Amino acid sequence: MTSHPVIDALLAELGADAVITHADSLEAYRHDRANDPNAGTPLAVVRAASTEDVQAAVRIAAREGVAIVPRGAGSGLSGGSSAVDGAIVISLERMRQIAIDPTVQMAVVQPGAFNAEVKAAAAAHGLWYPPDPSSQEFCSIGGNVATNAGGLCCVKYGVTTDYVLGLTVVLADGRAVKLGGPRLKDVAGLSLTKLFVGSEGTLGIVTEIVLRLIPAQQPPTTLVAMFPTLAGAMQAVVDIKAAMRPSMLEFMDQVAINAVEDVMRMELDRTAAAMLLVQSDESEAVAAAQIVAIEAFCEAAGATECYATSDPDESEALIEARRMAIPAVERRGALLLEDVGVPLPHLGDLVEGVAQIAERNGVEISIVAHAGDGNTHPLLVFDREDAVQSTRAERAFGEVMDLAMELGGTITGEHGVGRLKQPWLADYLGDDVLELNLRIKRALDPDNIMNPGAVFGPL
Amino acid sequence: MTSHPVIDALLAELGADAVITHADSLEAYRHDRANDPNAGTPLAVVRAASTEDVQAAVRIAAREGVAIVPRGAGSGLSGGSSAVDGAIVISLERMRQIAIDPTVQMAVVQPGAFNAEVKAAAAAHGLWYPPDPSSQEFCSIGGNVATNAGGLCCVKYGVTTDYVLGLTVVLADGRAVKLGGPRLKDVAGLSLTKLFVGSEGTLGIVTEIVLRLIPAQQPPTTLVAMFPTLAGAMQAVVDIKAAMRPSMLEFMDQVAINAVEDVMRMELDRTAAAMLLVQSDESEAVAAAQIVAIEAFCEAAGATECYATSDPDESEALIEARRMAIPAVERRGALLLEDVGVPLPHLGDLVEGVAQIAERNGVEISIVAHAGDGNTHPLLVFDREDAVQSTRAERAFGEVMDLAMELGGTITGEHGVGRLKQPWLADYLGDDVLELNLRIKRALDPDNIMNPGAVFGPL
Repeated sequence: MTSHPVIDALLAELGADAVITHADSLEAYRHDRANDPNAGTPLAVVRAASTEDVQAAVRIAAREGVAIVPRGAGSGLSGGSSAVDGAIVISLERMRQIAIDPTVQMAVVQPGAFNAEVKAAAAAHGLWYPPDPSSQEFCSIGGNVATNAGGLCCVKYGVTTDYVLGLTVVLADGRAVKLGGPRLKDVAGLSLTKLFVGSEGTLGIVTEIVLRLIPAQQPPTTLVAMFPTLAGAMQAVVDIKAAMRPSMLEFMDQVAINAVEDVMRMELDRTAAAMLLVQSDESEAVAAAQIVAIEAFCEAAGATECYATSDPDESEALIEARRMAIPAVERRGALLLEDVGVPLPHLGDLVEGVAQIAERNGVEISIVAHAGDGNTHPLLVFDREDAVQSTRAERAFGEVMDLAMELGGTITGEHGVGRLKQPWLADYLGDDVLELNLRIKRALDPDNIMNPGAVFGPL
Repeated sequence: MTSHPVIDALLAELGADAVITHADSLEAYRHDRANDPNAGTPLAVVRAASTEDVQAAVRIAAREGVAIVPRGAGSGLSGGSSAVDGAIVISLERMRQIAIDPTVQMAVVQPGAFNAEVKAAAAAHGLWYPPDPSSQEFCSIGGNVATNAGGLCCVKYGVTTDYVLGLTVVLADGRAVKLGGPRLKDVAGLSLTKLFVGSEGTLGIVTEIVLRLIPAQQPPTTLVAMFPTLAGAMQAVVDIKAAMRPSMLEFMDQVAINAVEDVMRMELDRTAAAMLLVQSDESEAVAAAQIVAIEAFCEAAGATECYATSDPDESEALIEARRMAIPAVERRGALLLEDVGVPLPHLGDLVEGVAQIAERNGVEISIVAHAGDGNTHPLLVFDREDAVQSTRAERAFGEVMDLAMELGGTITGEHGVGRLKQPWLADYLGDDVLELNLRIKRALDPDNIMNPGAVFGPL
């Protein structure tokens, strides 16, 4: 076996147990859930156990001019953790400590801990960490911070950044800094904590996170409504949102309903064009009144069936159906997973436009959506082995983002730009805002070693 | 009158109505509420009426190498709007439009609108903009964004940045950019919106703000508790916070109680060492149970008197007493107003340490505090005409910040660094984080024309 100066340095600093270099083992670290076909092969994977480990690896990379790709649980959907040829992948999968401080209602968490583990640790103290990506059982909190992840409860409870009070970050030169901390208020200096949230590993590597927790959620009441038309469901979303603040307002189209029904056998109406899943977690009397109002809005918009339940298990089963939608649709073929969002009044235009894109390109596109905040996931289903289908799907993928931008929306609401959406970022941000982004990227990572190619493409 | 190229250019671009150059009129724009003794005299004040006005003024300043000091309502407490000799002050006082969109529960606001005006406009649609600095009747929303302002409700509802979804910003070269927007979720590119919140005018000038609103608050129940000892009140704060999430948890010491009583005649117990003001805005049954628990915690910690009310007018009068504390204490002399915060378990140590600093320096220091989030306002009272007292007060001002840092706290929780606290920023942040701040400052404002001397001092 030939020696490589970078690998030798990593082994010397971190030990053989923390450094993976065998080709077979590297393979598992090349892709995240986006299955980026352009993912490279790393030189080595460092399985860091501490901030110091991450610093040691970054110092070696900086000295040798080698790229770094940070990686949490590998559940990313935009290729933010796609490996780069010759890079060091720094995996945070071993850093999973969680400490809850109920006195100040905060958590100090290492980035490799899963979202659901943080929720469970908080729940043991009667507390709640709200952000809830559908992947909560297998996505890491570090990845959530990297992408400013959302989820189902964001319509009422906001996104990841709203809960991040402090970060420990390893910078591109290997220094570790503490930003913010366990203080609800702190305005001394620039808001660097918030800048690093959503930076997708392009500015530094987060090795510890201070999270704000809130008291446990009230048991919610859940309503399911089935609609014969997409337009009716969209109208109900706008009407409900204008009248109240539900704790969940989710949408599934006919393809998604059927895909879920195939897997879960929940007796969902397979003929319905659309389904809404709405929750209220207000106190009993208020929730009851809200559910009555929600049902009235749905019926006025043409809902053929409304069913409400305050049984926790039944509620959870319905939400599980929604969380299953993406994996269920994935059984139909390869997926290109969209994440476009528009201001709520344009949600109907987006859904209708996506249907036209599907028809024009001869591609199947199913839509599930965090409808209440205008964030949709058009799922482009295709056969990866079929070159014609793949080309059509890629074209449609771009057209969906173009449509969202035309409607005043974003190319990514919660998954991140990663590598798959990088070609569209310039169009979305415009020259001036892109240039502002690049000025900060260059100021913090002048040699472009932190996750190069992600978000910004070649610099 | 001699002609000046910068003034000539401002007049030519903006018209005489928008440009103030007379010495008498300039005087009113030299200070904010911090009364910075080192404030300079500007060359001119531009009273901008639009983003384009701000751009025109910034372009002239950039071309001529003249400093810019942005200014909202002039209510800042850290000298962030102190004028600089020869600078152009850009006043946003004319830009006060407010548009509420109830469909998406958002507001689009110009920076000169007062905080209370935004609240009132939201309330007309059954909505609420939570952040509530005590100065809400006379502070601007632009200033709130510049300092990431807090207030009384932050213990439950968070601070300004938690409600900012989008900004229009005029950059140091005069370009205007839109960051974020009316989308609850948007992760395309770096979180620049959040970076500009709290940047105190050092990176650009905010000319429009998109705010997230939430449904109107439930009518709160308010409890007042009087304590014979500071330690007892501090214990009650920690106990209450660990058990629930009150919507307000405020503290006043004996000096503040007496100062407020002098002005408002509310029959507060002048012999008490401390007073807590606690609110619950949960639904009726939950709030009632919380108030019972709060009272029990206060009594266990030695409270001599507890009084609860759910009468809205009575509640408002009690909160008004707390908001009056700073102006009431100000009647006793000039104030140096502190804004230090510590992790909640160290609140008692901070209050006790401040008393020692007062005694050691022979200075009167009264404390009011947003106790529930560990954010305190020690008020240093002195006679500005008395050189010995002034020196002592300044020394004590620094010692309070040093103490907060020793206790793991911040030098400013919600007022900003401005110019008064700039000398302490390096100590607080440490070399690495300060350098990170400066890299971003230099990347966005390479010629240091945006509010020079604020936050970072001379560059």
